[in-house]
Amino acid sequence: MVGGGPGSFIGPVHRMAAELDGRIRLVAGAFSRDGGRNAQAARAWGVAADRTYGDYRQMLAAEPARTDGAELAAVVTPNHLHFEVSAAALKAGLHVMSDKPATLDLAEARELAGVVASSGRLYGLTHVYTGYPMVREAREIVRRGDLGAVRKIVVEYAQGWLSRPIEQDGDRQAGWRADPAQAGVGGCIGDIGTHAFNLVEFVGGARVTALCADLAAVVPGRVLDDDCNMLLRFAGGARGVLIASQISAGARNGLNIKVYGEKGGLTWSHERHSELVVDWLDAPTQVLHAGSAYLSATARTASRIPTGHPEGFIEAFANLYRDFADAIVAGRSDTGLVPGVAEGLRGMAFVETAVAASRAGLGWVPLEEAA
Amino acid sequence: MVGGGPGSFIGPVHRMAAELDGRIRLVAGAFSRDGGRNAQAARAWGVAADRTYGDYRQMLAAEPARTDGAELAAVVTPNHLHFEVSAAALKAGLHVMSDKPATLDLAEARELAGVVASSGRLYGLTHVYTGYPMVREAREIVRRGDLGAVRKIVVEYAQGWLSRPIEQDGDRQAGWRADPAQAGVGGCIGDIGTHAFNLVEFVGGARVTALCADLAAVVPGRVLDDDCNMLLRFAGGARGVLIASQISAGARNGLNIKVYGEKGGLTWSHERHSELVVDWLDAPTQVLHAGSAYLSATARTASRIPTGHPEGFIEAFANLYRDFADAIVAGRSDTGLVPGVAEGLRGMAFVETAVAASRAGLGWVPLEEAA
Amino acid sequence: MVGGGPGSFIGPVHRMAAELDGRIRLVAGAFSRDGGRNAQAARAWGVAADRTYGDYRQMLAAEPARTDGAELAAVVTPNHLHFEVSAAALKAGLHVMSDKPATLDLAEARELAGVVASSGRLYGLTHVYTGYPMVREAREIVRRGDLGAVRKIVVEYAQGWLSRPIEQDGDRQAGWRADPAQAGVGGCIGDIGTHAFNLVEFVGGARVTALCADLAAVVPGRVLDDDCNMLLRFAGGARGVLIASQISAGARNGLNIKVYGEKGGLTWSHERHSELVVDWLDAPTQVLHAGSAYLSATARTASRIPTGHPEGFIEAFANLYRDFADAIVAGRSDTGLVPGVAEGLRGMAFVETAVAASRAGLGWVPLEEAA
Amino acid sequence: MVGGGPGSFIGPVHRMAAELDGRIRLVAGAFSRDGGRNAQAARAWGVAADRTYGDYRQMLAAEPARTDGAELAAVVTPNHLHFEVSAAALKAGLHVMSDKPATLDLAEARELAGVVASSGRLYGLTHVYTGYPMVREAREIVRRGDLGAVRKIVVEYAQGWLSRPIEQDGDRQAGWRADPAQAGVGGCIGDIGTHAFNLVEFVGGARVTALCADLAAVVPGRVLDDDCNMLLRFAGGARGVLIASQISAGARNGLNIKVYGEKGGLTWSHERHSELVVDWLDAPTQVLHAGSAYLSATARTASRIPTGHPEGFIEAFANLYRDFADAIVAGRSDTGLVPGVAEGLRGMAFVETAVAASRAGLGWVPLEEAA
Repeated sequence: MVGGGPGSFIGPVHRMAAELDGRIRLVAGAFSRDGGRNAQAARAWGVAADRTYGDYRQMLAAEPARTDGAELAAVVTPNHLHFEVSAAALKAGLHVMSDKPATLDLAEARELAGVVASSGRLYGLTHVYTGYPMVREAREIVRRGDLGAVRKIVVEYAQGWLSRPIEQDGDRQAGWRADPAQAGVGGCIGDIGTHAFNLVEFVGGARVTALCADLAAVVPGRVLDDDCNMLLRFAGGARGVLIASQISAGARNGLNIKVYGEKGGLTWSHERHSELVVDWLDAPTQVLHAGSAYLSATARTASRIPTGHPEGFIEAFANLYRDFADAIVAGRSDTGLVPGVAEGLRGMAFVETAVAASRAGLGWVPLEEAA
Repeated sequence: MVGGGPGSFIGPVHRMAAELDGRIRLVAGAFSRDGGRNAQAARAWGVAADRTYGDYRQMLAAEPARTDGAELAAVVTPNHLHFEVSAAALKAGLHVMSDKPATLDLAEARELAGVVASSGRLYGLTHVYTGYPMVREAREIVRRGDLGAVRKIVVEYAQGWLSRPIEQDGDRQAGWRADPAQAGVGGCIGDIGTHAFNLVEFVGGARVTALCADLAAVVPGRVLDDDCNMLLRFAGGARGVLIASQISAGARNGLNIKVYGEKGGLTWSHERHSELVVDWLDAPTQVLHAGSAYLSATARTASRIPTGHPEGFIEAFANLYRDFADAIVAGRSDTGLVPGVAEGLRGMAFVETAVAASRAGLGWVPLEEAA
Repeated sequence: MVGGGPGSFIGPVHRMAAELDGRIRLVAGAFSRDGGRNAQAARAWGVAADRTYGDYRQMLAAEPARTDGAELAAVVTPNHLHFEVSAAALKAGLHVMSDKPATLDLAEARELAGVVASSGRLYGLTHVYTGYPMVREAREIVRRGDLGAVRKIVVEYAQGWLSRPIEQDGDRQAGWRADPAQAGVGGCIGDIGTHAFNLVEFVGGARVTALCADLAAVVPGRVLDDDCNMLLRFAGGARGVLIASQISAGARNGLNIKVYGEKGGLTWSHERHSELVVDWLDAPTQVLHAGSAYLSATARTASRIPTGHPEGFIEAFANLYRDFADAIVAGRSDTGLVPGVAEGLRGMAFVETAVAASRAGLGWVPLEEAA
Repeated sequence: MVGGGPGSFIGPVHRMAAELDGRIRLVAGAFSRDGGRNAQAARAWGVAADRTYGDYRQMLAAEPARTDGAELAAVVTPNHLHFEVSAAALKAGLHVMSDKPATLDLAEARELAGVVASSGRLYGLTHVYTGYPMVREAREIVRRGDLGAVRKIVVEYAQGWLSRPIEQDGDRQAGWRADPAQAGVGGCIGDIGTHAFNLVEFVGGARVTALCADLAAVVPGRVLDDDCNMLLRFAGGARGVLIASQISAGARNGLNIKVYGEKGGLTWSHERHSELVVDWLDAPTQVLHAGSAYLSATARTASRIPTGHPEGFIEAFANLYRDFADAIVAGRSDTGLVPGVAEGLRGMAFVETAVAASRAGLGWVPLEEAA
């Protein structure tokens, strides 16, 4: 693991998720550049002192030389290091599971795609929401055509924790996210807008071809956007709306997606993630429950325990790691349902296009295929 | 009552709502141009044969001449007659309660405003959602500043009943709504978009100053829009999103509004209209229930029966009629919380601006003060 | 109408419900023994002064003598007058719609049944919850056998408004309910327990044959029960639980019923009365919505306006009045789905049996067929 | 770990939960008496072959002799082995975390209590629902007296998976639960009734002093109860209802508890476990969310990740293991919030009392303090 030292939110999640199913063990890490914090993380997680590295480069030099060396690197640093660390790890022969967004900007993402291609290693991107069973079921329902052709998609990701300028008061999580040098050109759009965008394409099954964006830095003193509203057009003609906000005061982590087709519509909400609601034109509403025998195989295998026994965020994350481990063990060259570098590229193209278009007040702009 | 004959949805609602509180009685009507249907409606509602008129002009000539003549006209025709009938009724000395939208287009709305002003009579517009107790409470919360300055408003009005081209199969309700001659330049935007727009300004307390609209006629063969997505800007700097759709397959009548301020956010959903959810940055979520003693007077008086005994659409409608009756009896020159001709003007400006801007692919356009 | 003067909760509900569908008009009343209050009610509801009677006996003498005399009496007094007024009205040739419970005690109920039988008039009892569309749909689902044989029924009716001894502080609604002379031997069990009991038999389709009751007067100083918990046994072998409480602090008017059969279970909750949830052993949960075309005819006709446009308590009440009016007009000798004197008898047997058994700590006791 | 081989539901949960926070590692096990299945479990979980034992007695002999021997035994066998294995492990010097119920019957529970006392080791019982943050918050709210004196508690645990006689078709999970030799005298009451009972006393803070039980074996051919309904009396005067059922067709794992006090009531539902709803007599409903800063320390520390990022069943389980590990490391003689042998004793007294009383049709019987 690179990054994830004390105070990190996502580092511990990666650790718990990776180990949950007994397929992966955390054996080495460069958790923090601060020696004390680095050692503290290692102790907490049972990583041996001689495999706790002060710098990720040392780790990538040492581990491949061991017969029991790490095979997979989890990249959980702030955004600006994602590319550098991921590329180095791939070149060192490790598979990489990176937190999102894939890179700091689109140019880096293009370069990363090249590195992945030439490395012969697998690259996964933790768009965690794709790991929820009922998100996978939603994707299946759309793919099977149960709803008919898709006409409209609305996705809304509302958080409120940046409603106050807490980055100016020393909050670590807010600090790097509000800093263009560490976060990139996008604030909210990079942090959670990319999740919403990825979810739209993952579930909806169609590419966004154009967008019209209104991004704003609402909280005084903030440079990067903290509120994003967007109209979307999809290949195939569907229309959509994407909302991502970190100043939706009082919202916790409210991610919802609605997909409307010719015959019905489906709704998935993170607050009730074990359920999938499908409304029909002429029949009763259906509520599908995670862990049920009537689900598609894809959704069924994403639950560990019987229906009615809720899993959650860590388990969704763990589904990505489990699938990734399967792909590695099987020697596959693709990561299946786990988002990869192509999704990383899409995400960075989305961020750069929307930020530029909103800044210039351009109205509708095309979202190019990025590669 | 003008219009509302057999097959009408909204005519019977006006009748039930107007009479619910014992303040108003339906005593005369021109319910249909078809003699048989006209008589059928009259019988069903206990209107005397000699006050059942074949034409609204006859009614407006005859009623004022009676000592017990009607004082208030309910206008429940398709849109294209709203102006003509309302203006005539006002000129005949009757107060008018009109269904929305106020007129067929903005020019008519401007003319209507003049008629109202010179008539000395009251004009009300049944944006029914403003009649719900918890919508009124939401407005109070925003006005009191409990949330701090408003930063963002998201309103979504999703219906699915026009997902198929039922107007081509003889459906009366769909038929006139899909016909520009009867409905005007807007389809979905006029029918329910105006409700959403009115709700945003009613609850949010700020004017929309600009919008960026994407309207579409999704169902093949349809001329008018059946799906609307819009970005909004408000006086004072807030941003917003407005979604209105009649092709959201499976949706029934899902109107939701979320208002986010500096300190918290509120959510009202028509599907759970007796509740108002308020989320705070630093405190537990609150759920306020209609009929509770802790509500503002404005909300409290909008319930007839104790908390836990649900009222609904008809009662919300009746609140508009009750308030309107109060204003008439008190001889007031304003209608208080009941939307009036100013709101009618706003609505028509909204429709024309959005339709034109969307058609031309204009991006952001200002929404002028209409009067 | 007898009773229902200023301060009454249920009187105005009867008035609004009876008139809602234009089938019935309030034309006469003895609303209060207090002359001023009596006149006040009459004025508010447009009842002529000469048909506003100081005593119900005067009304029952005068109205039948008129050619336009009232045909139907609504009995909305406190419990202790239900029998006396209902019997007198029936004997005077009027049909009767009575609020529940039917009488003060079982002996009166038996006598009332005789009066009804000999009167040739219709008698209805406003167990309002049977008027909700989705309660009627639930009954249909059970009757059709969709769930297989019924195994278990749980009904819970939770209110909190009597958590404090407000009857000792002059609250009118609480006052008569806490007074055995006016309410009878049951407090909570008579007031809302009878609703729950009626709902169980209405929806579940089987008779309660035995019960084991724990009734308590929880609030200090109260004589009658304010909290009831009960185990039930049904003809056919099903088991059940009935909870009724007016000291469930914070509860508003939370009535829920769950019926479990061999193949699935259904849940109806008054807080979401427009929905009916059906869970199946092997298939997705279904949520049925009031006003939908896929419902049984019984449920469909109990909605006035399209799905997604919520009706409520008054409309459910109005369904009883509308059905009752249909039965009168059709000259039928039964009231169809509207509860009648048989249900009144069952209710009083339930109250007396449970009160006596609980007081004596008897454990299981049979609930006799009452007639 | 003893038990938990392939096909076990709860074994894998113990494994994931114990390891989640990096405090405990699974190092040895006797997972199955079947050699192949035993080895299969060991491989899946990375347990060394020389620490995979064919019999738990071998394990308890070998592990204490190692310098890196296991310190804690997880007992996840069917019920009839709980006592034997737990007692042996304690005597071998290991701490024990046992699945519930503690033993096969009350006599064994009494003996176990003696073994725990003399062993100097800690004993924990995985009543997992006590590990949910919002259950702990509910307990705090009651203890702080926010609701005033508790008056009523209703707990309902509804499952439907035993609606058909699947134990007769080879279902392993159902098989041992339906067999008195492996499950004990109670079926549903032992399996989930004990959870409901434990939850009532954990949250409600008062002991059950008497009960009146109706237990039934509803499914033809079943010997042990599969449906339980019960009235309760508490020390201090509160009343209650306990429902536990495994034939509530369509229910998944629906555990709900409502506690009503003088001033308000709280509701926790497993289907929305991250929330706690508190209703008040005179104020808006509050909804508390797991992970929020405003919660009690007890609840706050039971969340790993920020509010809005749902944890679940495994994490609740892990909270018990984490607290247990804390107690071991700190050398404490108590397990804090983790249920222990006293709760095990209570549970077995509850089962035996209810089964005997229901069988004899006794009505109210006292629930003795068990020790």
